[in-house]
Amino acid sequence: MTMEAMPLRPLQAKRRGRPPKKDGGRLETREKLVRCGIEILTEHGFASTGIDAVLKRADVPKGSFYHYFASKDDFGRAVMDGYAAYFAKKLDRWLRNEARAPLDRLRDFVADARDGMVRFDFRRGCLIGNLAQELGATHDDFRRHADAVFGDWQVRVARCLDDAKAAGEIAADADCDSLAALFWIGWEGAVLRAKLMRSNDPIDLFADSFFAALPR
Amino acid sequence: MTMEAMPLRPLQAKRRGRPPKKDGGRLETREKLVRCGIEILTEHGFASTGIDAVLKRADVPKGSFYHYFASKDDFGRAVMDGYAAYFAKKLDRWLRNEARAPLDRLRDFVADARDGMVRFDFRRGCLIGNLAQELGATHDDFRRHADAVFGDWQVRVARCLDDAKAAGEIAADADCDSLAALFWIGWEGAVLRAKLMRSNDPIDLFADSFFAALPR
Repeated sequence: MTMEAMPLRPLQAKRRGRPPKKDGGRLETREKLVRCGIEILTEHGFASTGIDAVLKRADVPKGSFYHYFASKDDFGRAVMDGYAAYFAKKLDRWLRNEARAPLDRLRDFVADARDGMVRFDFRRGCLIGNLAQELGATHDDFRRHADAVFGDWQVRVARCLDDAKAAGEIAADADCDSLAALFWIGWEGAVLRAKLMRSNDPIDLFADSFFAALPR
Repeated sequence: MTMEAMPLRPLQAKRRGRPPKKDGGRLETREKLVRCGIEILTEHGFASTGIDAVLKRADVPKGSFYHYFASKDDFGRAVMDGYAAYFAKKLDRWLRNEARAPLDRLRDFVADARDGMVRFDFRRGCLIGNLAQELGATHDDFRRHADAVFGDWQVRVARCLDDAKAAGEIAADADCDSLAALFWIGWEGAVLRAKLMRSNDPIDLFADSFFAALPR
């Protein structure tokens, strides 16, 4: 959920060496714009962010934006996709870590996210939560997209809780889907409050109560 | 937390009859602008909302905005204050209702807020949560202000939980301040998700789990 330093490598495509020459680096420039968009939009929101600021941070010539995106909304969607892909990978890194017991995997994710909050001085939080809050009422496609992203994250946590059930860490009749939904509801609220307080106390309070309330 | 139809009467000042003539209705016009600002900003956010749209909805002549507010930020602060006062009054109406048992008072607030979500087609949610999410990282005074508002609401819920403790509804050693903090963390997350899903399911899921987890 928290924005970590984004990798300089492309987010989704795995390639080695130089890009194919035929696209003249177009794809890489597009990915750089998305990456810079994630950084800027997570802090400043969508409406406040000018396209020029993104181009400047990405060191891409002014005026070339529409070579990469049909519109600012199109860019916004690409930024949400980029963040969702980045974050799903990060979730999997923690939640599928077979070296740890299932509930410890979720605790590891929380601990890592706490560190991310501090590293970015409590300024970033969750891009999807931010854009959903800002645009959910006015941009119906962004609203549906954000809902789908939360749905995806929810499934990943639910599967981790299924593992916890199989390992006997939580009760055999636990409703893992509902618990996973509760996790993200509380998580988004906790990250918002942590940003306001510039403190991880809300995250700790939420996480402690979430783990304590799991049916055993 | 949800935005209900704002009263047509001024939000804080209680007056009867016409306003004193000496201010030429200035205060009432200002309050009308704030009320319209609450409605528009709750749906559209701060950066996206133009001052002209607020003046138009309030039927106040274009160009007279700076007669009432020093800046758009000044207006934003007044809107937050107006919403906070409105919402504190609403909370008190439910949470200090002596005709109901303390936990039922909190349940009544939840039921009323659910209705508000439906009434506004899941478009509004919480103005403080929205502005905090949008501006918390970039407007430090808005961030601190939003944090103080949540702190105020938290105290009101904590006192209701104190009453529940005194009435034997929750355990004598319950930490009412932490429980109240948890309530607002989960509440803000639930309202955000309800807006995305256009459904009260997240609010029901959160509220049911909150009440079920209260120490007895």
